[in-house]
Amino acid sequence: MSLPSSTKQWILQHKARENAVLGSSNESTFKLVEKPLPSQLESGQVLVQVVALSNDPAQRTWISANIDKARLYVPPVEEGDVMRAGALGKIIASESKTLQVGKHAVLMGVGGWTEYVVTNEKSVRPVEDLPGGLSRTHYLGALGTTGLTAYFGIKDVCQAKKDDVVVVSGAAGATGSMVVQIAKHVIGCKKVIGIAGGAEKCKWVESIGADVCLDYKASNLWNRLKEETPDFVNVYFDNVGGEILDQMLTRMARHSTIAACGAISQYNRDGEPIGIKNWFEIVSNRINVKGFIVLDFLDRLAEGMQALREAVVKGQIKIGEDSETVVPTKFDEVPNTWIKLFESGGKQGKLITKLA
Amino acid sequence: MSLPSSTKQWILQHKARENAVLGSSNESTFKLVEKPLPSQLESGQVLVQVVALSNDPAQRTWISANIDKARLYVPPVEEGDVMRAGALGKIIASESKTLQVGKHAVLMGVGGWTEYVVTNEKSVRPVEDLPGGLSRTHYLGALGTTGLTAYFGIKDVCQAKKDDVVVVSGAAGATGSMVVQIAKHVIGCKKVIGIAGGAEKCKWVESIGADVCLDYKASNLWNRLKEETPDFVNVYFDNVGGEILDQMLTRMARHSTIAACGAISQYNRDGEPIGIKNWFEIVSNRINVKGFIVLDFLDRLAEGMQALREAVVKGQIKIGEDSETVVPTKFDEVPNTWIKLFESGGKQGKLITKLA
Repeated sequence: MSLPSSTKQWILQHKARENAVLGSSNESTFKLVEKPLPSQLESGQVLVQVVALSNDPAQRTWISANIDKARLYVPPVEEGDVMRAGALGKIIASESKTLQVGKHAVLMGVGGWTEYVVTNEKSVRPVEDLPGGLSRTHYLGALGTTGLTAYFGIKDVCQAKKDDVVVVSGAAGATGSMVVQIAKHVIGCKKVIGIAGGAEKCKWVESIGADVCLDYKASNLWNRLKEETPDFVNVYFDNVGGEILDQMLTRMARHSTIAACGAISQYNRDGEPIGIKNWFEIVSNRINVKGFIVLDFLDRLAEGMQALREAVVKGQIKIGEDSETVVPTKFDEVPNTWIKLFESGGKQGKLITKLA
Repeated sequence: MSLPSSTKQWILQHKARENAVLGSSNESTFKLVEKPLPSQLESGQVLVQVVALSNDPAQRTWISANIDKARLYVPPVEEGDVMRAGALGKIIASESKTLQVGKHAVLMGVGGWTEYVVTNEKSVRPVEDLPGGLSRTHYLGALGTTGLTAYFGIKDVCQAKKDDVVVVSGAAGATGSMVVQIAKHVIGCKKVIGIAGGAEKCKWVESIGADVCLDYKASNLWNRLKEETPDFVNVYFDNVGGEILDQMLTRMARHSTIAACGAISQYNRDGEPIGIKNWFEIVSNRINVKGFIVLDFLDRLAEGMQALREAVVKGQIKIGEDSETVVPTKFDEVPNTWIKLFESGGKQGKLITKLA
């Protein structure tokens, strides 16, 4: 096989206004370019072909204009840089003693919207094939950052217990669907309530373990939420922010916990963020709100991975085709698959870009 | 002395709309009535003359209409009930073996806008005279619930340390002014920044221990806040909620703590509460927001009182005329003194109603 001499890349052309809605036509935000690859690898380097990309709501925050760098938990993507993304690749050339050609690997912090990456062996974590014919793309989702976010979030941040009533928003999403399963089947929480958009997604969330899943598009959402939480809610795992968060504040039990994991409803919308009006509930019911990012658990990744694998083996967490929406994508269409994250629609579980 | 046969009382006539601004004319909210007193005390009972009333922002939340009782941390005041308030009284008749006539006492949960109270000895905590000519009214403020809120809030809830940069809003208020002193002089925090309304109050807050106090009425508040927090803020003790809280979210350090103690800016205003737009800062900077109420520390009141007394004796906390605004008030005017809590003006420290 002759090695490629260049790679296509999507670079950030113009940062996005913080409150702008990026749509399917992102010509002004991203730009497709071609960059030369080195003709020879240095010792310890590998050449990786990217075979799948992780699509994460947080990427939207990395490209916002007018954001104070000091306030971001990872450096922003700068104009001219390759758009950063979690990525699974295949090693196609190696000057590393430990990494063999043909091996699949997760790119650690060096992944992005690029066909090929030349990087040091230290930034490459080789992965084993999964049993039962499971797709390796799960290393970007259930068995990767997403699963770890769910695991540390519900176990460590929320400290959810058997007696707890748990609500999970974005419950059909990548993180939310893992939280539902861990809460119900690993921890064994008394009641797990999902919130998701549309009857079909809700049905799926119930099929993976939620005692009930409420449709946020339904007009009776708040009444249903009240009915389902007569004794209030001990743990709320918030992936969405905005209005659902605001209403959830009125349903939290005394001395309850909110894990503030994300705010996807606010990342890619027109106008200012929706204001949270029920803040006083935090005071009067002594709610503990804990912002968190999986990066805070870097030193415990091995433990988390082990726990997730065990849960899969025991059948407590079911992963498979249902837990991913894999979109085969030509490289030229990479941004269009990503933007589906913010569109209402049929995606379920982790949204994966599979490069053709 | 002949004992009174009746007592004047202010009862709650109509609950206040949640978003209504109560002003000095509260005829429709409160009503002055006269109630008979029992002609004889039962064994264990005392008759207490109320000599001073505590004025607390939280009282506004107890009388709001349309509030779900299950969401309040104490039962609401119902229409027809005496308006509840912290109170200091003098025992003027006693059928108790432990409580003597002439003794002063704090009423525990049975105080209110009433001239006299007949109650069981268990609801009465006798207090000693304070040294140095300090007014006994401090038992309603610095050496009472207010001081304990500040003490447990900054020490236990925030766990403020010597290395911390601390911001306190409502810093000229009863709780805030105690937090400033405890943070600076008891814990010894690196930098204590107050936020208060008006140059005069700010000067006072600086005189009691704040390294700097910012005037929220000044047009350059947010710039000044930025200038004073180049390395961000480790602990924010929030008494006010609303816009100041929203801006503070953008100045919190990574893994910092907010004690959500109150939201006085939102209790007595027209329209809906101000929405908190910067919620995502909680996620991206992993802020821990902890709602709390001093009632959660009921089992440690003795410890807190002891610590406050020691701090006063050591001169770490200065209390005196400056730390209270005592308003001599005819009983018929009691609601008008209370409403000053929500008015811009000259009050400083604890607002005390001294009954003539």
